[in-house]
Amino acid sequence: MITQTNIQQAATRIAGRVRHTPILRLAADELGLGRELVLKLELLQHAGSFKPRGAFNRILSAGDVPESGVIAASGGNHGAAVAYAARALGLRAEIFIPALTPAAKRTRIESFGATVVQGGATYNEALDACRARQAETGALDVHAYDHPDVLAGQGTLGREIEQDAPELTDLLVATGGGGLIGGIAAWYRGRVRVISVEPEGCPCLHDALAAGEPVLSPVGGIAADSLGARQPGAEMFPIARAFVSEAVLVPDEAIAAARRLIWDRLRLVAEPGGATALAALLCGAYVPPPGARVGVLLCGSNASEIP
Amino acid sequence: MITQTNIQQAATRIAGRVRHTPILRLAADELGLGRELVLKLELLQHAGSFKPRGAFNRILSAGDVPESGVIAASGGNHGAAVAYAARALGLRAEIFIPALTPAAKRTRIESFGATVVQGGATYNEALDACRARQAETGALDVHAYDHPDVLAGQGTLGREIEQDAPELTDLLVATGGGGLIGGIAAWYRGRVRVISVEPEGCPCLHDALAAGEPVLSPVGGIAADSLGARQPGAEMFPIARAFVSEAVLVPDEAIAAARRLIWDRLRLVAEPGGATALAALLCGAYVPPPGARVGVLLCGSNASEIP
Repeated sequence: MITQTNIQQAATRIAGRVRHTPILRLAADELGLGRELVLKLELLQHAGSFKPRGAFNRILSAGDVPESGVIAASGGNHGAAVAYAARALGLRAEIFIPALTPAAKRTRIESFGATVVQGGATYNEALDACRARQAETGALDVHAYDHPDVLAGQGTLGREIEQDAPELTDLLVATGGGGLIGGIAAWYRGRVRVISVEPEGCPCLHDALAAGEPVLSPVGGIAADSLGARQPGAEMFPIARAFVSEAVLVPDEAIAAARRLIWDRLRLVAEPGGATALAALLCGAYVPPPGARVGVLLCGSNASEIP
Repeated sequence: MITQTNIQQAATRIAGRVRHTPILRLAADELGLGRELVLKLELLQHAGSFKPRGAFNRILSAGDVPESGVIAASGGNHGAAVAYAARALGLRAEIFIPALTPAAKRTRIESFGATVVQGGATYNEALDACRARQAETGALDVHAYDHPDVLAGQGTLGREIEQDAPELTDLLVATGGGGLIGGIAAWYRGRVRVISVEPEGCPCLHDALAAGEPVLSPVGGIAADSLGARQPGAEMFPIARAFVSEAVLVPDEAIAAARRLIWDRLRLVAEPGGATALAALLCGAYVPPPGARVGVLLCGSNASEIP
C-alpha cells in the first residue's frame, strides 16, 4: 500500500509539470444545497483532467524510457495525459482507446502528438490490445490506474486539497478504476471521510467493496468513457477497504444535473465523470453528517459542448 | 476621484455577496508566450462576470431603495449582475438591453427574475430608454460604469489581485465604458502598470486618451455586447489619464484566438470581452518591458458555446 511518503515524493517529482489547481469556496446558498462547499478545480489541470499527475509520476519514476516510448490504454483522459506528458518529456506515445471514447478526446490525444489506436467496445478491450502491442514494442506501460506510481501521483491531489482546505471532514471523489480515490485515500488515511461516487452504470468499486473483493461489473451510462472500468485496481483495493468511508451510486440524471449546475452557477464545463462527485450531494446519494465540512473534487473537463 | 479607502469600504460592504475568485499561475510555456502569467479568474464570478462587485456596492451604498426597485441599462453582463444582486437583496429589477445583446444573456437576466426590455441598436440607445423609464418609476439607477460606487466596487478586483499576486508589475484589463479599469487603476494608483485593452471595433478609451477628452467612438465587432460603450465614463476618465499606463487595441481575430487558447489550454470558457485582455499579449499589441511580471484579468464567461 502506498504511503504518505510516496505521495510527498511524487509531489516533488512532478512539481512544475502539473498545475496546483485552485479551490473555490462556495457559500451555503450558492448551489441550493444549504451547505458551504469547497470545490477543488482540478478540471483546470493540463490536458483537462487530474490524469497528468499519475502519468508524470509513473514516467519520471521509471528511469530510462525505451526508444519506443510510452504506451497506454485509456477511455480518453488518461491517454490525453500520457500524450501530454510524453510530449513534455520528448518521448513517443501510443494510446489505445475504445470505440466509446468521444471524438473530442481522440482529437485531443492526437493534438499532443501521440499515435492513437481505437478499437474494442470499452476500456478493458483497449487494455488487452495495448498489452499485446506493448509485448511487441517494449514501450513503458503507463497503466491508467493500477500502478503504485500512478496512485502516488494522483494522491498529490489529496496533499494539495489538505494544504488549501485543511478544515475538510468529508471529500467526495468520482471513481473509475480507482487510481484517483486510491491515491487520495492513501494520503488522508482516514483523517477525512473519503466518499467514492460512481454512476449506477459503472459501479465497480461499490460492487467490489460489497463483495469483499474485485468482481466484474457492468460498464455503461453517460460517464462510461472516463469512469468505465470493469473492476477496481488491485493496488487500490486494500486502500479502499481501509480508508474509503463509503461508496455510493448516482443515476445519470443526477450527473447531467450536476453538469448543468456547474455551468449555470460557476461557468465551468465539467464532463460527466468530472461532475459525478457533486451529483451525490444533489441527489442525496450521500448525506454528510451534521457538522461536516465538505469538499468536492471536480476532476475532468474534456467535454465538447456546454451542458 | 475615488480613493483606496472607497475601495476598501466597498470590499467590506460586498464581502460575502461576491466570490473572491481564484488566480492561476501559468508557467512560461503554457500559452506559448514565453513568459509566466498570473490569470485572475474573475470569469467565475456570480452571474458570469465581474459586474456584481459594482452592482452590489452601488445598491448597498444607496440606502433605502424605492419600492420600484433598481433599473439599469446593459449590454448584458451588467444587467445579469444587477438582476442577480436585486434577487439576493429582495428587490425588483428592470433591465434595458440593446438588440445586439445575445439571447443567452437575455435568458440569464430573466433567470434572475428581472423584467427585460430589449430595444435600440447598442448600449447607448438602451441607456436612453432606461433613463426615460427611470424618470417615470423613480427606481434606483445602477449605471453600468459611470458612478463612483460602481467604480469602487469594481476596484475591489485590484485589491484582491494585489493580495493574491503582490509581485505583479503589469496588469492587462479589458475596457468597455471603463468602470472596471477605472476602479482597478484607482486601487493601484500607478504602483502597477495598468494596461487598457479594447477591440479595434470599440476603441473609446483609446480614442478619448488620444483626444484628451471623452469623444464619441464607433461600436462594433465580436465583443460589442460587453465592451461596446461609445465613450468612457466621466468618473473614470481622470483616473485613466492619471493611472492607466497605455491603451491598446486588438483585432477581433486576436480575441477569437485568445478564446480558443483559453479553452484549449485551461478549459475555461471566456466570452469575447472576457478574453480581450489576453489577446493583447497574443497579437503583440502590448509587449511588456523586460523583467515585467504580468497579470491578465479574465473578466467574463457569458458565452453560449465552447469557442
